[in-house]
Amino acid sequence: MKRDLKNIGSRVSKEFVANIFDDLRQMSVDGPGVSRSTYGPGETAAMKYCAELAESEGLSSYYDDAANLVIKLPGKVPDEPFIICGSHLDTVPQGGNFDGAAGVVAGLLSLIRMKREGVLPPRTIRVMALRGEESAWFGQCYLGSSALFGNLTKEDLARTHRSTGKTLETYMVELGVKTKPILAGENLIDASAIAGYIELHIEQGPVMVARDLPVAIVTGLRGNIRHQKIICHGDAGHAGAVPRWLRHDAVISTVDLLHRLDSHWAALQERGLDLVLTTGMLTTNQNDHAMSRIPGECEFCLEIRSQSIDTLEAFYQLVRTEAASVGSERGVSFEFDERSLTLPAVMNDRWIKRLLECCEKKGLDPEPIPSGAGHDAAVFANAGVPSAMIFVRNENGSHNPNESMEIEDFMCGVDVLHAALLNPPL
Amino acid sequence: MKRDLKNIGSRVSKEFVANIFDDLRQMSVDGPGVSRSTYGPGETAAMKYCAELAESEGLSSYYDDAANLVIKLPGKVPDEPFIICGSHLDTVPQGGNFDGAAGVVAGLLSLIRMKREGVLPPRTIRVMALRGEESAWFGQCYLGSSALFGNLTKEDLARTHRSTGKTLETYMVELGVKTKPILAGENLIDASAIAGYIELHIEQGPVMVARDLPVAIVTGLRGNIRHQKIICHGDAGHAGAVPRWLRHDAVISTVDLLHRLDSHWAALQERGLDLVLTTGMLTTNQNDHAMSRIPGECEFCLEIRSQSIDTLEAFYQLVRTEAASVGSERGVSFEFDERSLTLPAVMNDRWIKRLLECCEKKGLDPEPIPSGAGHDAAVFANAGVPSAMIFVRNENGSHNPNESMEIEDFMCGVDVLHAALLNPPL
Repeated sequence: MKRDLKNIGSRVSKEFVANIFDDLRQMSVDGPGVSRSTYGPGETAAMKYCAELAESEGLSSYYDDAANLVIKLPGKVPDEPFIICGSHLDTVPQGGNFDGAAGVVAGLLSLIRMKREGVLPPRTIRVMALRGEESAWFGQCYLGSSALFGNLTKEDLARTHRSTGKTLETYMVELGVKTKPILAGENLIDASAIAGYIELHIEQGPVMVARDLPVAIVTGLRGNIRHQKIICHGDAGHAGAVPRWLRHDAVISTVDLLHRLDSHWAALQERGLDLVLTTGMLTTNQNDHAMSRIPGECEFCLEIRSQSIDTLEAFYQLVRTEAASVGSERGVSFEFDERSLTLPAVMNDRWIKRLLECCEKKGLDPEPIPSGAGHDAAVFANAGVPSAMIFVRNENGSHNPNESMEIEDFMCGVDVLHAALLNPPL
Repeated sequence: MKRDLKNIGSRVSKEFVANIFDDLRQMSVDGPGVSRSTYGPGETAAMKYCAELAESEGLSSYYDDAANLVIKLPGKVPDEPFIICGSHLDTVPQGGNFDGAAGVVAGLLSLIRMKREGVLPPRTIRVMALRGEESAWFGQCYLGSSALFGNLTKEDLARTHRSTGKTLETYMVELGVKTKPILAGENLIDASAIAGYIELHIEQGPVMVARDLPVAIVTGLRGNIRHQKIICHGDAGHAGAVPRWLRHDAVISTVDLLHRLDSHWAALQERGLDLVLTTGMLTTNQNDHAMSRIPGECEFCLEIRSQSIDTLEAFYQLVRTEAASVGSERGVSFEFDERSLTLPAVMNDRWIKRLLECCEKKGLDPEPIPSGAGHDAAVFANAGVPSAMIFVRNENGSHNPNESMEIEDFMCGVDVLHAALLNPPL
């Protein structure tokens, strides 16, 4: 599958870029989409590919203490704070090829360009492929970046993989990570030594397509509250023989709860609050459910996102109140697993300004937009690192096989990134 | 596991009966309950056990053309129409031990008693263990009895097993069934040669426990309309990045539909209509669902039961209308598989009267009650066979591991059955 990258020549052409994405896609094809599992073989293979590409261009790389890949280009003043240009290489199961990979490839291309052109950046640049941005595999997102800032808990490391059931810690240890400092909540990186964290990412919503923007600069990121597993416990029974008033139906109770929450969402949105609500996974008990059996158990996840921490917490209280209400009305109970909270994040004004200027110089509309989705940039921002994001237009959303980014749009984004890395707002 | 049945002695004691149920339970333990799969090894093992028990008591048995087990005791007038005393031995996955088995064991115990006491019944009696009463395995119920009356279609035989994916026809052929006459819709049994079909069964609802009735006589059975698989097709997308008005969320659309149907059910019941509604299985696509992904697909089953065919059909129209309405409002579509219809059935007046008389003679309250659940008796009744059912009190419903029938109650039911078989209303 791997191309002979050394023979591609010195120009960073559209074909060169397209080939990189094709290679990444081919190594991770899964059904209709691609799967690159968090802290697993899919993600590691993609990292190796990027490291080899970097090496073939004379760039050195290593894995940090959380097994994140780091590709480094020393700058003019090696002792001053450095700039991180990062994103992730993992995907959701059967997801798209660009979500995450675009940012890592963008940073790498910028370094390749500097190297080929013999340009020395003002500050050392570390292109990082951060581990485990997607929550799909272990039920928790931003694993690689959170590990760097001592944000992973014992419970996080005990989280189990969606299909193998092995713990995150097991996967980390298999990749050579020493988990003791992570479990102790130690910082693996010094936030004050980072001058900026810049992440290029495809837009995951439909806004830029609708507004005809190839590139946009992000102002802030939604945070979220999540439960990976909420179980509605009712009573199983014969579907024909138990009358309505004696039923404790776990499916209809779950339907009742989700319907109430959907109605609240609609009402709050009309009042102008920023909020999205998703139940992406829902299932009756696969071991004993049947068409003629009143379901005794129904399991689902719940995700609330908002740019406002107050909205998140207020809606979360509503979830718990309505669950208690449905429980007492229908004679069922809802069992919540531990909730996870990711704080909303604000991007750095100086970096936003500089990136907008770089857009303008390239003849692109300087557009600031908010990000509905969360990103590793939120972890860096909340750790006190000046952070910024460049969005590239992408059709059909992300987390699905149909995501579609034009290479031309991507290269515009890389140009903006490249210009900012060479002229950072320090 | 098997006891030395020959050493038990000639008396049909409570211990003898309890041992039979214990043996059946032990051979089919599965997790918290028992599993005896339709036209599969679990059901066949239970049949062999019953056949061997019959043989040890001097009763002959054979498998009919649909692989149903038949244990036969010739009566005084062998050429006159015979009486079938039947039920089933299969269970839902991880279900209870008595649903079905009680009826087969009851018939067998009555024949054993006649044999041991040297009593010749007025008519030949066939105790039948009918195959595949439960819909849980192939999504269709009453398979063994339907086969006898030419009611199985090509589509039914092509139905696939819930876990192996093999077709019903494959399972039948493996048991030596010649499927050609079944596919041709031929009658494998002559309804006019059957003087009556009597089925003893545990009650699957809570009525007899509430009314303190050990035994009751059934007046009629609910029919049903079922869809094994309805798929809601929406669009997958990133949970954070797609705003509410651009979502085509398969879970929330399914929730909307089921919530509407639940509200209609509540309203219709207040108007006095006989109806129950169940979605026993519900799941997002296990291959690609994730917490941070708007679900693009949600699959569920639907079962409507009523004693009235008019209510069934009217509610079914409501289901289709509401599905279309949710579909157009939320930009999704609902794909329905082929529906199955089981007609409601009325039990035979002469047999009901005789069974009530037998109750009275035994000092039991002669109580007629309707059956919320369907049974093989409905297939025989709708084929023109005079049919009747004896219910035995049972706690905690059925189709779950906690079903609980007292052996004393069961033996009261067997006494009523025995008396009626010796004095049938011919």
